[in-house]
Amino acid sequence: MQRHDGRELDELRPLLITTDFTASPASSVLIRCGDTILWCSASIEESVPRWMQREEPGKGWVTAEYMMLPASTTPRSNREGRRGQISGRTQEIQRLIGRSLRAAMNLNKLGPRTITLDCEVLQADGGTRTTAITGAFVALAQACKRLKDQGLIEENPLNFSVAAVSVGVVDGVAMLDLPYVEDVAAAVDMNVVMTGSGRFIEVQGTGEEATYTQEELDSLLVLAKKGIKDLNQIQRAALGEDPFYAPLFE
Amino acid sequence: MQRHDGRELDELRPLLITTDFTASPASSVLIRCGDTILWCSASIEESVPRWMQREEPGKGWVTAEYMMLPASTTPRSNREGRRGQISGRTQEIQRLIGRSLRAAMNLNKLGPRTITLDCEVLQADGGTRTTAITGAFVALAQACKRLKDQGLIEENPLNFSVAAVSVGVVDGVAMLDLPYVEDVAAAVDMNVVMTGSGRFIEVQGTGEEATYTQEELDSLLVLAKKGIKDLNQIQRAALGEDPFYAPLFE
Amino acid sequence: MQRHDGRELDELRPLLITTDFTASPASSVLIRCGDTILWCSASIEESVPRWMQREEPGKGWVTAEYMMLPASTTPRSNREGRRGQISGRTQEIQRLIGRSLRAAMNLNKLGPRTITLDCEVLQADGGTRTTAITGAFVALAQACKRLKDQGLIEENPLNFSVAAVSVGVVDGVAMLDLPYVEDVAAAVDMNVVMTGSGRFIEVQGTGEEATYTQEELDSLLVLAKKGIKDLNQIQRAALGEDPFYAPLFE
Amino acid sequence: MQRHDGRELDELRPLLITTDFTASPASSVLIRCGDTILWCSASIEESVPRWMQREEPGKGWVTAEYMMLPASTTPRSNREGRRGQISGRTQEIQRLIGRSLRAAMNLNKLGPRTITLDCEVLQADGGTRTTAITGAFVALAQACKRLKDQGLIEENPLNFSVAAVSVGVVDGVAMLDLPYVEDVAAAVDMNVVMTGSGRFIEVQGTGEEATYTQEELDSLLVLAKKGIKDLNQIQRAALGEDPFYAPLFE
Amino acid sequence: MQRHDGRELDELRPLLITTDFTASPASSVLIRCGDTILWCSASIEESVPRWMQREEPGKGWVTAEYMMLPASTTPRSNREGRRGQISGRTQEIQRLIGRSLRAAMNLNKLGPRTITLDCEVLQADGGTRTTAITGAFVALAQACKRLKDQGLIEENPLNFSVAAVSVGVVDGVAMLDLPYVEDVAAAVDMNVVMTGSGRFIEVQGTGEEATYTQEELDSLLVLAKKGIKDLNQIQRAALGEDPFYAPLFE
Amino acid sequence: MQRHDGRELDELRPLLITTDFTASPASSVLIRCGDTILWCSASIEESVPRWMQREEPGKGWVTAEYMMLPASTTPRSNREGRRGQISGRTQEIQRLIGRSLRAAMNLNKLGPRTITLDCEVLQADGGTRTTAITGAFVALAQACKRLKDQGLIEENPLNFSVAAVSVGVVDGVAMLDLPYVEDVAAAVDMNVVMTGSGRFIEVQGTGEEATYTQEELDSLLVLAKKGIKDLNQIQRAALGEDPFYAPLFE
Repeated sequence: MQRHDGRELDELRPLLITTDFTASPASSVLIRCGDTILWCSASIEESVPRWMQREEPGKGWVTAEYMMLPASTTPRSNREGRRGQISGRTQEIQRLIGRSLRAAMNLNKLGPRTITLDCEVLQADGGTRTTAITGAFVALAQACKRLKDQGLIEENPLNFSVAAVSVGVVDGVAMLDLPYVEDVAAAVDMNVVMTGSGRFIEVQGTGEEATYTQEELDSLLVLAKKGIKDLNQIQRAALGEDPFYAPLFE
Repeated sequence: MQRHDGRELDELRPLLITTDFTASPASSVLIRCGDTILWCSASIEESVPRWMQREEPGKGWVTAEYMMLPASTTPRSNREGRRGQISGRTQEIQRLIGRSLRAAMNLNKLGPRTITLDCEVLQADGGTRTTAITGAFVALAQACKRLKDQGLIEENPLNFSVAAVSVGVVDGVAMLDLPYVEDVAAAVDMNVVMTGSGRFIEVQGTGEEATYTQEELDSLLVLAKKGIKDLNQIQRAALGEDPFYAPLFE
Repeated sequence: MQRHDGRELDELRPLLITTDFTASPASSVLIRCGDTILWCSASIEESVPRWMQREEPGKGWVTAEYMMLPASTTPRSNREGRRGQISGRTQEIQRLIGRSLRAAMNLNKLGPRTITLDCEVLQADGGTRTTAITGAFVALAQACKRLKDQGLIEENPLNFSVAAVSVGVVDGVAMLDLPYVEDVAAAVDMNVVMTGSGRFIEVQGTGEEATYTQEELDSLLVLAKKGIKDLNQIQRAALGEDPFYAPLFE
Repeated sequence: MQRHDGRELDELRPLLITTDFTASPASSVLIRCGDTILWCSASIEESVPRWMQREEPGKGWVTAEYMMLPASTTPRSNREGRRGQISGRTQEIQRLIGRSLRAAMNLNKLGPRTITLDCEVLQADGGTRTTAITGAFVALAQACKRLKDQGLIEENPLNFSVAAVSVGVVDGVAMLDLPYVEDVAAAVDMNVVMTGSGRFIEVQGTGEEATYTQEELDSLLVLAKKGIKDLNQIQRAALGEDPFYAPLFE
Repeated sequence: MQRHDGRELDELRPLLITTDFTASPASSVLIRCGDTILWCSASIEESVPRWMQREEPGKGWVTAEYMMLPASTTPRSNREGRRGQISGRTQEIQRLIGRSLRAAMNLNKLGPRTITLDCEVLQADGGTRTTAITGAFVALAQACKRLKDQGLIEENPLNFSVAAVSVGVVDGVAMLDLPYVEDVAAAVDMNVVMTGSGRFIEVQGTGEEATYTQEELDSLLVLAKKGIKDLNQIQRAALGEDPFYAPLFE
Repeated sequence: MQRHDGRELDELRPLLITTDFTASPASSVLIRCGDTILWCSASIEESVPRWMQREEPGKGWVTAEYMMLPASTTPRSNREGRRGQISGRTQEIQRLIGRSLRAAMNLNKLGPRTITLDCEVLQADGGTRTTAITGAFVALAQACKRLKDQGLIEENPLNFSVAAVSVGVVDGVAMLDLPYVEDVAAAVDMNVVMTGSGRFIEVQGTGEEATYTQEELDSLLVLAKKGIKDLNQIQRAALGEDPFYAPLFE
């Protein structure tokens, strides 16, 4: 079976991570996975939400917002929030991003501050939610380093690295990292979030008007693990040699 | 390890399904799983959403709404929709319910009509989303039978039965069907939706400020399969002996 | 003149009040009046709205919410609050319920806490607002007793019982307790809220594209008083023999 | 008992109705009742709401909007609709105005057009909802005449005149037409809408943290009838001698 | 070139300013410019918005709200705020009014209080935003005098008078104070806000599907200055001879 | 007087226009003016808004949306549209962008299609609205060329080029193209939109808690014209040598 772009079944799309894309946030990452492009940034605020302050004083908070910018698709998408509510899909995705990155954080070590990860989709070609997680991790790690460099925290509040990838079954064949054209044809669509040490943070496998067997599930997870390993290397290279980052990938 | 209510690790809470709870909808099911109580009903409308009409004329539609009624919790919850937006959690859940049941449907056989599954939480003690799916399937099956009995459709648009169950890891131990007290203590929380024939429709496994291994994932899926089988029997009993329902569980 | 269900003109529909329908709220009442079914619950919160705190510190508050659940009607109703505003009808009804029950309360004796009465319509066949008041009174009385039993209040903050009934003129004939089929045919529609001692709390008489005379008004009030007396007996029986409740009906 | 402004118990406040206050709507009425001032206008649109078109083609529609302008009170009120929802009070009032005036209309004779009655409160000193009805009737009658004069309708769609007044019990004494200072002190507050021929359209009597007897109800209605008769004369004078209006008051 | 109402190119429409239109706000001004009628009132509140309190404690605030009342136009306009958002046009106008009047204020001298200028359009025939500014200035000046008379402030917080006028190019000819019929035909539409001493506060010149030259701009500004001078005289007359007001126009 | 970044008073900040920033919209332009960065894109849809279709069938439409992305500022801004309404500032800006570019368009030549200009602020350092117009013109011109190349239109619907620049008075000195640090210190703030041939489209000059004279106005316009000429050259270079674009700048 030949994939439409000639890739192997267990091969990621070309992935490019550019740091310092803009200057205002604590960290500003442009991530490109094939034709999917996101701007993932981390902004630090020296306060926490009121409920957090009340329930767990002293702890920090990490949250995410996700938005498909209108020009990221052809035809143009409506700008969410201009009329009526944010879609369920958007809410689901930004909850997933926030939850996945909090799983890697020691919020006590972060101290009473909030890091907001803004994931803006500039171009959409499948896999925007997993690419958002992979890019937002890099932004989050840089923001933590910046706090350390400024003497605002003592220890790295991140426990390990986080990356995410999509896998799916198309025409009965399991494959890694689906662009839009494969995504719409997939009978099973699975998003996997893992740590650099190979543990699961989140597995979401959905039969799209279809069902799947234990065997299919197993083979999808094998592909996902392979993809996460490749992503880890690219994340590591993007962050550079600094000893602050090294333990996160071990 | 003793569970707080004395159950075995692979044992469901007592489950009770009552049909014909009220008279107005096409099917009205009261489902009680331990101290979690939901009213799942199916209403039939002889039209489809406009986008469906345009994109796939002739096909039917199945959708779900989910709501935690304010008195379902202590302390009382706010009534969603009175100020501001529906929460991301609610949207996520009702999207999951709708998607899971559509996976079992042949929308062509349903014809140009909409079945809406309203899942009202009357009492919440963990597992409301999975109990909603298990109960909504019974309501959906009865609504399909009613369409058949009225001569509005010829064949059963349902391909198989659907049930859902939660599993989780608490204090390092995998267990089935978590009430609230176990749910908040769980390091891993997984919701599994399956067909009566043992195929997956949806697997959502989340590390709650934690991560999990392949081994834990595997043992959770074993428990889930066991639970789904037990649920199937109770669903089957609730629906009765009619030959319309029998093939759904095979 | 024969009523469609064979009742006398001054006869209530069969009325059934079930207490302890669910476990989470302070009181949980299922009330069935003919084919109209509501779940009326009372939840207690140990605080009051901010404006109350500021303007009348030390006093308590009683408020109500009313909702027609989508499956309560055929065809299904839209779920209010999912798009746009709550309807004027719903707001009017929940304001009426709250106002009617506050008329019976000594909010000083209640102390700085809020009791919220949630009136969920499970099945609608006319008279939902009056049935809500009749059922919510039972829930409120039980919630007050619970506060007394827990030593949180010393005296019963309720001064007397409250019940409500609809009356109307159909084809020139005044009649009691109108189901939907009579309600839509009524030229005059009147809702009457009274105390157990026969005093008025609220009278709302509306000519529906029609007008009415003093004589019609008088005869409707006679019927309403008869109905309220019957409702009082059923409320009293539902609450039981406890001396806490007895003075409310005298 | 002396009223604060020296009026008799059955005496209206000075009432002034000015027609042709502005030029744009079909009719523009400024009504002043004591220190309560409203601008009531009638605008005609040659179409009806979509639901009306579908359900009762050929018939017309009459609707009302009511708004307390911010500068109508001291201190200034918030402008409704700028944040969040329209209050329940506003919705209740504009539903009452619309319903009361539709009770006097033959919507078939109006034909497929909508008359909107905008009731803007310029100064609020109690009785704004009843003054709105009394003024809006004058605007509606003039708008109907204009349609007749333009040959758009053949017969007057109004069947009779409509006026409204508030009555209440203050310190145990029933009295007519309460300004704000009496209104806040009233134990019972009743709004009565009647036709020029002395029939009721709407009676809304509310015990404000209080209850009332049949005797009090009766004496309030006597006062209300007296007030409505006085209002009819002022309405009649404002409309002028035209034979189009005369039958409405008989 | 003959204007449709016979005016000279540099002639204002007849302008009438009536003070004390209603009693509740601190100042209540009815302003009529040709067939455009607005009610401009000033309400004083003894507090400032929270952000003002935090950022500039001790200073006062002046803000404006603008609303086209539905009956101000033929056909009737929708009431803004009943469904969805306030239009961009309304927001733009009320921001302009507030900004223009704040330019004339010393907010330190005002002290920690808010003056809200409500500009209600009763009849719309072009120039509503400029007429709002001209009328709101009169209301603001009276409100300041009232504060002075009550001993709440020592010095007049107003530094100078403010008035506004529209100018435009119709069929290649520059003209002053455009009613609706000229406004829709204008290729260039300019609103000019100036002080009584001839300084600019705001110039907004828009080519309506057109462009304009420096020469046209210059000739429009000449007309605007002439108009503002005439407006100043009418404002001055409306405010009366009091020495409090005199310095504002010098 | 030395400007904080050493620029001359009539000197623009370094301006960089990159075309083809992303692939999905018809045209995708990244524009950087000093430290202000925007992504301006043009998306084409083969339909027009319903009101346009009804009122001016056959004509096209050009509209704009503007959004400050949260990470464009330090500290992070709230994402507009997630709670409550779009701010008045945002609405004002996107109305200005749309109006300015429509002034250059022949909507009849565009035919029944909509071009939407999305202006996303990636980094904000003053002048975002003028930079948006300058960048959106380039995107609009490219989108028109694309329509021509595809044979969808025959003639260029653009009549001339459009650019915009801010000017202001800081410490009594008029200067061109203000970054944030100068903008907050400016007593007068003016935005000027002009055609490539030196005609005005829009002039908006605001005294910020200040006023200005005719002389100041004149000197600001001289600076603005100088700036627009420089912008035209950069726009022209960005668009390239194609004869489609040349006449727009003459």
